[in-house]
Amino acid sequence: MAEPKGPPSSSKIEMKKYSFPVKPIQRLCWTEATADHLMTHEEPVVLTDTDLVQSALHWDLSYLEQNMGPAKHTVYVSKSRYFMYYDERKVNDFPSFKEPMKKREWTFSKFVDEYKSHEGRTDEYLYYQDALTDTVGSGIKHDFVHFNWHWVSERKKRYNWGQLTSNLLLISQPGNITPCHYDEQHNFFCQVRGLKRCLLFAPDQYDKLYPYPVAHPCDRQSQVDFDSPDFERFPKFKEIEGYECILSPGDVLYIPMYWWHTIETSPGELSISITFWYRGGPVPSKITYPLSSQQKVAITRNIEKMLHEALQDHNEVGPLLHMICDGRY
Amino acid sequence: MAEPKGPPSSSKIEMKKYSFPVKPIQRLCWTEATADHLMTHEEPVVLTDTDLVQSALHWDLSYLEQNMGPAKHTVYVSKSRYFMYYDERKVNDFPSFKEPMKKREWTFSKFVDEYKSHEGRTDEYLYYQDALTDTVGSGIKHDFVHFNWHWVSERKKRYNWGQLTSNLLLISQPGNITPCHYDEQHNFFCQVRGLKRCLLFAPDQYDKLYPYPVAHPCDRQSQVDFDSPDFERFPKFKEIEGYECILSPGDVLYIPMYWWHTIETSPGELSISITFWYRGGPVPSKITYPLSSQQKVAITRNIEKMLHEALQDHNEVGPLLHMICDGRY
Ligand SMILES: [Zn+2]
Ligand SMILES: [Zn+2]
Repeated sequence: MAEPKGPPSSSKIEMKKYSFPVKPIQRLCWTEATADHLMTHEEPVVLTDTDLVQSALHWDLSYLEQNMGPAKHTVYVSKSRYFMYYDERKVNDFPSFKEPMKKREWTFSKFVDEYKSHEGRTDEYLYYQDALTDTVGSGIKHDFVHFNWHWVSERKKRYNWGQLTSNLLLISQPGNITPCHYDEQHNFFCQVRGLKRCLLFAPDQYDKLYPYPVAHPCDRQSQVDFDSPDFERFPKFKEIEGYECILSPGDVLYIPMYWWHTIETSPGELSISITFWYRGGPVPSKITYPLSSQQKVAITRNIEKMLHEALQDHNEVGPLLHMICDGRY
Repeated sequence: MAEPKGPPSSSKIEMKKYSFPVKPIQRLCWTEATADHLMTHEEPVVLTDTDLVQSALHWDLSYLEQNMGPAKHTVYVSKSRYFMYYDERKVNDFPSFKEPMKKREWTFSKFVDEYKSHEGRTDEYLYYQDALTDTVGSGIKHDFVHFNWHWVSERKKRYNWGQLTSNLLLISQPGNITPCHYDEQHNFFCQVRGLKRCLLFAPDQYDKLYPYPVAHPCDRQSQVDFDSPDFERFPKFKEIEGYECILSPGDVLYIPMYWWHTIETSPGELSISITFWYRGGPVPSKITYPLSSQQKVAITRNIEKMLHEALQDHNEVGPLLHMICDGRY
């Protein structure tokens, strides 16, 4: 069993400074009982020796350009270092919504060309975010097949997760930031190249992070601007408490479903990461009370969806919720 | 077609004064097109010539005592003139809830004795509220059979209501007040003896009337004390607008489902009334948007019930609703 590598520190690298308290996320060998305990309880942990994507650790732009094949891939283009995800299908319902980034479909070659011409620019940034599919060339296929599928399948079984939905390849310019959001899936976030600083917040911090309404394109994203929080609108953000880690190549961060995360690429160099996304397990047949924060988030999502469905107009959801709440609860 | 009788005025009788604006509820012959129009659109109207309970207009305490039979009946006893309904089944979930009135089961003779001994008392008041059932004697049965069932069944059919659920007999001491609430049924409220002042509020006034949470024993009742409104907690009550009528014997007030009402017995004399409660019609197969206020109230009730069911603790419903609303809607 390898000794866990010492954690890089965010103070040594030029990362964003935030005023809220953070605790370190534990770095552990996956064979440690504590690691298993944490994952069983859906708490984050950095696994240091899984070899999960060992076969991809040699990936760089030039190798990928040679081997990704001729297919087109999704690259986001942003005027800022922030790349806030939004659901395109919900955009038409919000006519005043300004897309925070643009989606491009480029061949990998085109991406590499653009990447090079964007180096040093401060008016536009790029972030490659696309699933690994079978359009890739034989080199990548070989690397993919040699991911530690045995290990990851054992994890899925042990924690009773649902099916693997995708492996995303993420290629980020230095300094890019994915704003704070939660996903409805479990994630093994594997660092391949460069450094990422990950800030995580437990599901019980939901009320301090004020996600957009579920019908909004930015569903699951915090409305709070971490750089300049509006404490009038979001007073509970003052009480936010997080967890932090720096991922270097070979590290695997387990991001549990419903855990909030904002992820920043170190300003020094390009970052490459690969995700393993798994659906949550089946709803337990015997529900115990009080419910977990995760279950409460799931309930709030269902309530918002039902109201939207019943009213057929997202503008009416708020007034109806206030009709239920105001002066009554 | 009889000419409608002129409306008694609340200013002529000693009734409570309120500061909010009220419009008169129209008094109409049931054959008037306007009456039909109002009822079709679930708006209140006083029908002056239905003969619906003509056969009961001779009822008084002495006749009822002779003819109600030996069964026991529900009489509410209150320390004040207010008789706020509460759901006994929900009381155990609210340990600090103080029952606003006590329920007694008395023979009609016992009620009459108590009624007489309560006359002039200012420390305790009585309100008889029980369904007319087949335990009644032959005199009452005869009167009941001669209610204008043909007329009322025609109304039910025309307005596509559900089944008749009960006929309540209400016998009130002078000055008793039923605080503001709504029912989930349509009601023909028939005045038999004495005067009642009825204040009604449309379903779109819901947000100004702040009903108790659905899980609370006082579900469907306004939390607002009309005599001394707490405008800090209930600011929108300042904007309340109502409708008013005075019912005298022979008048039938149609109280549409979900319309709020507070009903006051004139201080001058005992009041006897009979209600005809009908379930609402089936949900329309084709729903049109925007929804009516009634449909929105139905939705809010379902949301509150679902949350209560999901959380299994009424104390958790409020925090979860605030988690959905605060800073988000
Ligand atoms: Zn994510
Ligand atoms: Zn009522």
